[in-house]
Amino acid sequence: MGFRQRLRAFTEAPLFGHFITGVILFNAVLLGMETSPVLMASWGELIVFLDGLCLAIFVAEIAMKITAQGRGFFLRGWNLFDFVVVGIALVPSGQGLSVLRALRILRVLRVISVAPRLRRVVEGFIQALPGMGSVFLLMAIIFYIGAVIATKLFASAFPDWFGDLGLSAYTLFQIMTLESWSMGIVRPVMEVYPYAWLFFVPFIMITTFAVVNLLVGLIVNSMQDAHHAEDEVKTDAYRDEVLERLESIERRLAGRSDMKK
Amino acid sequence: MGFRQRLRAFTEAPLFGHFITGVILFNAVLLGMETSPVLMASWGELIVFLDGLCLAIFVAEIAMKITAQGRGFFLRGWNLFDFVVVGIALVPSGQGLSVLRALRILRVLRVISVAPRLRRVVEGFIQALPGMGSVFLLMAIIFYIGAVIATKLFASAFPDWFGDLGLSAYTLFQIMTLESWSMGIVRPVMEVYPYAWLFFVPFIMITTFAVVNLLVGLIVNSMQDAHHAEDEVKTDAYRDEVLERLESIERRLAGRSDMKK
Amino acid sequence: MGFRQRLRAFTEAPLFGHFITGVILFNAVLLGMETSPVLMASWGELIVFLDGLCLAIFVAEIAMKITAQGRGFFLRGWNLFDFVVVGIALVPSGQGLSVLRALRILRVLRVISVAPRLRRVVEGFIQALPGMGSVFLLMAIIFYIGAVIATKLFASAFPDWFGDLGLSAYTLFQIMTLESWSMGIVRPVMEVYPYAWLFFVPFIMITTFAVVNLLVGLIVNSMQDAHHAEDEVKTDAYRDEVLERLESIERRLAGRSDMKK
Amino acid sequence: MGFRQRLRAFTEAPLFGHFITGVILFNAVLLGMETSPVLMASWGELIVFLDGLCLAIFVAEIAMKITAQGRGFFLRGWNLFDFVVVGIALVPSGQGLSVLRALRILRVLRVISVAPRLRRVVEGFIQALPGMGSVFLLMAIIFYIGAVIATKLFASAFPDWFGDLGLSAYTLFQIMTLESWSMGIVRPVMEVYPYAWLFFVPFIMITTFAVVNLLVGLIVNSMQDAHHAEDEVKTDAYRDEVLERLESIERRLAGRSDMKK
Repeated sequence: MGFRQRLRAFTEAPLFGHFITGVILFNAVLLGMETSPVLMASWGELIVFLDGLCLAIFVAEIAMKITAQGRGFFLRGWNLFDFVVVGIALVPSGQGLSVLRALRILRVLRVISVAPRLRRVVEGFIQALPGMGSVFLLMAIIFYIGAVIATKLFASAFPDWFGDLGLSAYTLFQIMTLESWSMGIVRPVMEVYPYAWLFFVPFIMITTFAVVNLLVGLIVNSMQDAHHAEDEVKTDAYRDEVLERLESIERRLAGRSDMKK
Repeated sequence: MGFRQRLRAFTEAPLFGHFITGVILFNAVLLGMETSPVLMASWGELIVFLDGLCLAIFVAEIAMKITAQGRGFFLRGWNLFDFVVVGIALVPSGQGLSVLRALRILRVLRVISVAPRLRRVVEGFIQALPGMGSVFLLMAIIFYIGAVIATKLFASAFPDWFGDLGLSAYTLFQIMTLESWSMGIVRPVMEVYPYAWLFFVPFIMITTFAVVNLLVGLIVNSMQDAHHAEDEVKTDAYRDEVLERLESIERRLAGRSDMKK
Repeated sequence: MGFRQRLRAFTEAPLFGHFITGVILFNAVLLGMETSPVLMASWGELIVFLDGLCLAIFVAEIAMKITAQGRGFFLRGWNLFDFVVVGIALVPSGQGLSVLRALRILRVLRVISVAPRLRRVVEGFIQALPGMGSVFLLMAIIFYIGAVIATKLFASAFPDWFGDLGLSAYTLFQIMTLESWSMGIVRPVMEVYPYAWLFFVPFIMITTFAVVNLLVGLIVNSMQDAHHAEDEVKTDAYRDEVLERLESIERRLAGRSDMKK
Repeated sequence: MGFRQRLRAFTEAPLFGHFITGVILFNAVLLGMETSPVLMASWGELIVFLDGLCLAIFVAEIAMKITAQGRGFFLRGWNLFDFVVVGIALVPSGQGLSVLRALRILRVLRVISVAPRLRRVVEGFIQALPGMGSVFLLMAIIFYIGAVIATKLFASAFPDWFGDLGLSAYTLFQIMTLESWSMGIVRPVMEVYPYAWLFFVPFIMITTFAVVNLLVGLIVNSMQDAHHAEDEVKTDAYRDEVLERLESIERRLAGRSDMKK
């Protein structure tokens, strides 16, 4: 057994997986503690050191897996996910990019890639996405059209809400979620443009209806998947047996008829 | 092959369809750019010219299709949709009708009529509508009754919200979406009419329940459609075969019994 | 044919039904017009007269039906509904009871009892209610308990929201609909009682979960109803035929075995 | 029949159950009356006395059940529930622990444990929980990550909303319920951090999608449970009969073939 094979066996051993899961959870706690100024004031150096240690373990783990699996490592989605999520922490973030530092917490998402049950849930989510593609595209078109109309009509009077396409799209998203759509946005707009409801009420109805259809589609799909996987196999087996037996009876009857001739 | 037939073949060629789709998307970007005062200040003339060019292409396209298909053009819903959506842009909008100018963006909706997948989604939406007709009618009745009651009771004290039937209907729509219904509307009303909740809480319950039933109806309908289209065919084929074979066995048995007699 | 039978045939003729539907719709428009001070100022007397006329027609209609059907009239739910809804208008409302006058619009609900499709939708709603009984009762218990706890804990500091059981129940209903629950209610409460979220967040989760289960129950119920009514009959017929034929084949085979003996 | 058996028969008699249900409901009314300062001022002593009486009855009831059933009492979940809920009232609450006094109303929850229909609804809720475990865990991870990111980025500028992990988690819960998410939280945040929507909009989409998937999963599960329990038994019985009969026909045919040889 070569070095790569032994390395592979090592990285795929249950114990190694449990150890990595432990490190992820420990790191999650560390990153949570980092948000507390009190803790950072007294234990800051230790926390930062332990966080660096966790990161080193992750880098070593991924390096080992890449060595063991070669190119095959990058063919699995979850490996790529681990690679990117750990990689974020290695980007130098000293130059005031506090956002990048905040994103290091995304490493905790690795707990999904190491827990099979969570993995299946996320994979279920991802599998549901393509079926929603058409409706999403339609929503994007509706939002683009809505944003252009809203910007053209209301940009001059309400620059904060409808000043440009981006602001309009954000405001329309807020309206779609029904948050303060009337008291916050549409009533003030109607004081300037009394017929503004002719745009907003249909917009709400259309987007809500599209969202409902998305939901209905999801339910019907999962339903059918669940239905097939389980019932279908049993029913097909039964049907095959019935047809086989009927054929055998017919053959017997036919055979004896021939014998008699 | 006559002129009309050649024209028809030309307008139905895939290349022509791709070209029109490209023009629609290009026009969508142009209309988006028109909302930016900065871009309009420096490139305004070019954008307006290109927009006019796109419109000319659409008019020519529809003219060609009408020439090629004759009256048949107007028999298909999607053609009528294209006709209206392009036609809006031709209505003179110079007289301060900024709304009509804003509606030109509806041309982008043509992307739905040229993309089969989006078409199917929209057709699915439209097919779901008749099944919702009764519930919609019921909702309209509830809203009319609610608006009359609210106007009669609260118009004098809250003219902004319940001043006339239209205002009341809008406010009730807001309440149905649950947006600021209590803190924004019902609590202030209850300070004047302490029993106002006797009207609003049942109104919320009834309309929410109706919306939920609409949703349930939609789910059950799509479910059954999906169920039938797929399973039914297979089951029916199997059942027909079983019955046929049983009949054949019986006939054989009956035949031999006859022979023996 | 006696007088009662002729009266019954008359009240059940399609033409009579159409006439009553027409009167209901006309009356709906009249009651809508009554909400407009402008219209009432110039046409008030005519509108009130026509409204009285409509009411007289309804009273005559119901009197005729009671005469024709006798006690049987009161056995059908929809008849009782018509009776009550028309009866409301006859209660003297001159003594400042503007609420009773506003309730006259409920007469428009009669359009449901005369339109079979709307009737079926409402009957569907009513049939769904018993299945929801247990969950409703549970919700009532949760609300009662929640109201008692909220009143005991927060009544002293927030008398407007949690002053007594009724106010608390109303506020909890608002929180269940998620309207301004945090910014409007819970954040202010948490400024006085920092641990208030320990009561409100679980309350939101439990009530939302109960509502979702109500919804799920409704969907599953309608689904099964729809499923049975259609598929079951066909499947049962097929199964009966298969079993019958198998029995007949067995009987034939047994018969011949006997003959040979 | 020994003392314990007679005690058991007594506590399990329908009359005893009805009596306890009555006491629970009477106690619920008493605890509701306790929230009214007016009632407490004039009838306070009586109410407190009757409440103590109810509690004494509950304690006696549970003592009798424990005596009758021995250790077996604690093996049933609903008994434990009764034990805890009554026990809360016995904890001395005089030391200003008004919360404990408020929690005495939880005794009303006992009405669930004595009413079989309510019991089944709650058991249905509890059975649905394990299937939701993975999605809940995922939500917890998303909330933890979201809280860490929000605290790191926004704690300095918005200490009230994102000051520490707890505050951030509460604010994110509010945002997930869509309550004032934009006008109340995200728009103010965007005035300081213009790109804050890059965090909040995806957060809303992901959590909403997860909640929808939870809902879909619940529906599909209950659907299949309902489906199986009913249809499956019937279908299996039919299938077994068909296969048995086919076998018997084959055996007969085979038997006679053998006879002829």
